[in-house]
Amino acid sequence: MKTANEPGKVDRTPDVDRWVLPHIARMEGYVPGEQPQGGTFVKLNTNENPYPPSPRVKAALVETVTDRLRLYPDPIAREFRATAAALHGVEPDMILAGNGSDDVLTIITRAFVGRGDVAAYPTPSYLLYSTLVDLQDGRSHVVPFSDDWRLKVDDFHQPGLKLVYLANPNSPSGTALTPVEVAELAESLDCPLVVDEAYGDFARENCLSLLKTHPNVIVTRSFSKGYSLAGVRLGYLVADAGIVAQLNKVKDSYNCDALSLAAGKAALEDQAYLAETRSKILATRERLATALRTLGWDATDSQGNFVWATGGRPAVETFQQLKERNVFVRLMRYEGCPPGLRISVGTDAEIDRLLEVLRGLP
Amino acid sequence: MKTANEPGKVDRTPDVDRWVLPHIARMEGYVPGEQPQGGTFVKLNTNENPYPPSPRVKAALVETVTDRLRLYPDPIAREFRATAAALHGVEPDMILAGNGSDDVLTIITRAFVGRGDVAAYPTPSYLLYSTLVDLQDGRSHVVPFSDDWRLKVDDFHQPGLKLVYLANPNSPSGTALTPVEVAELAESLDCPLVVDEAYGDFARENCLSLLKTHPNVIVTRSFSKGYSLAGVRLGYLVADAGIVAQLNKVKDSYNCDALSLAAGKAALEDQAYLAETRSKILATRERLATALRTLGWDATDSQGNFVWATGGRPAVETFQQLKERNVFVRLMRYEGCPPGLRISVGTDAEIDRLLEVLRGLP
Repeated sequence: MKTANEPGKVDRTPDVDRWVLPHIARMEGYVPGEQPQGGTFVKLNTNENPYPPSPRVKAALVETVTDRLRLYPDPIAREFRATAAALHGVEPDMILAGNGSDDVLTIITRAFVGRGDVAAYPTPSYLLYSTLVDLQDGRSHVVPFSDDWRLKVDDFHQPGLKLVYLANPNSPSGTALTPVEVAELAESLDCPLVVDEAYGDFARENCLSLLKTHPNVIVTRSFSKGYSLAGVRLGYLVADAGIVAQLNKVKDSYNCDALSLAAGKAALEDQAYLAETRSKILATRERLATALRTLGWDATDSQGNFVWATGGRPAVETFQQLKERNVFVRLMRYEGCPPGLRISVGTDAEIDRLLEVLRGLP
Repeated sequence: MKTANEPGKVDRTPDVDRWVLPHIARMEGYVPGEQPQGGTFVKLNTNENPYPPSPRVKAALVETVTDRLRLYPDPIAREFRATAAALHGVEPDMILAGNGSDDVLTIITRAFVGRGDVAAYPTPSYLLYSTLVDLQDGRSHVVPFSDDWRLKVDDFHQPGLKLVYLANPNSPSGTALTPVEVAELAESLDCPLVVDEAYGDFARENCLSLLKTHPNVIVTRSFSKGYSLAGVRLGYLVADAGIVAQLNKVKDSYNCDALSLAAGKAALEDQAYLAETRSKILATRERLATALRTLGWDATDSQGNFVWATGGRPAVETFQQLKERNVFVRLMRYEGCPPGLRISVGTDAEIDRLLEVLRGLP
């Protein structure tokens, strides 16, 4: 370790714990989700879409694999943003593209939450919000859902509140607040409200219409779920152009690559394919929920591509038994709540296999 | 605007300037680099590689365009990291992959530089360092290069110093400190030293050997220059495993997509192609530098894929005249220095065209 009296002398052991910011040092290391390798298994644990991306997306990707990859991509994603803007009936300067919606959420957090600032989000919900606030050395204000997955607007109000995240539809519950309820929350806040619509493609309603009346609403979208493109990393947000202008300062200049932008544009342009796969997933979701209820589970009325199952067999034991039989679901534990199983909606064959295994458990 | 006496009432005008963090509000908006569209032009302004990516890279990309893109990529990039580790003779846990080396630099900055902390870097150099420090609300300590592009180690030492960035080879100069000189700087510091080797593939030496002896050294690499993959966004760093473990907490879980990881692995595996294109670029670079000197310019002995030209014709006027003739070079202005032209090394035909236009200017 260098001291003032010994210039030029350092200990050769890296003193990482001293160099790293204290709030980062305190954080837990990232534990990647379970990605089973090899063998035959049914993977219903990370809410991936069971259907492939649109053939038009794959064609657009292959067409983009040219010598032009030597060139930087468009730093402000003009073509992609124009396509998204046209689809949603907004101006292109209300769109910001990101390297997955996680990148978009990171950019938002860095713009609004500083050291010691408060950000609020419901629980149980997406676990990333807590990590994003921790990375900024901010303070999390956690708002519990009621037993029937409702929220009280007043519970969000806190001194120093700078940002609110709302996963809508929510994970793991699959429940969603109506646009009217979200509008009520937005109106009560003097800060931006992120409406995380990663699962919005499977929902009955969405909150894009609020952008006209509630300029503190930021809607985020993902290509990982509805568009079957978790592997390419693309997401975007829709917000007031003044908000987008500030967020543009925070993003990496070239945060989206040429391939994902081409894939995203092609995916948005194939709404018929989205409607087709969505329709299949919604039908399978209802079948799964009904079958789970028949087996004695409480299964929420989900608006995502997953079902939240609690109160049936013991969740931890069931998770393990399913895993031993090559069926992977997600065991979710949240403080103050009994554990539950979040089961992604796979193909009909995958859900048949899950139900068959579940029925045969000792 | 909401007040305590009027719950539920907000002004409908977005008060973005009040919501955004003050240090972000103060920053200038990002101005994307000049990307000329259409027509025939010679683009020598962003240091892209004039040669296409390796055919093996393009094949790997096309092979990755499958239904599996519906699945999340490997969050810790196991295969890519194993390939990079084998190439450099280090352990895989010393590698962290990022969405371009800009993402890697962002991750490093967020881990080590907090509000009010000092980060140091030379000038003239890569302009991003200043932005990264500003985004953290940190303080930049700028160390001037001498007229012959040398640095004094003592100039870096500052109270509260938490991080040093060193582009090596440097842009815009193309000059590089030797590993011995970098080691001397690393030894004098009680904080991490980022050796940004984005242009390392074109240099005579690199600083990877320092990792064994100087655990505060972090070497960053890019696929945008040597490997002709600016369009796919991939970079990585090599550092002490303890440093990498901390940085892993800061990165987005899925910061690298399946396509870029496949491209990067294939690129690293085709070192013969890198050697071939590198050799052509180095030959063209020498020819360009010699021709510029003949025309009365000072051209540095560059170790990058560009040449820094000053002291010939007036830089601003020449830049404009070249642009009017569809030849794009980069006009660089740094405080306290006369402006200069940073000219990327294109193909021989592109450089012939540049020189022809330059010789014919009125």
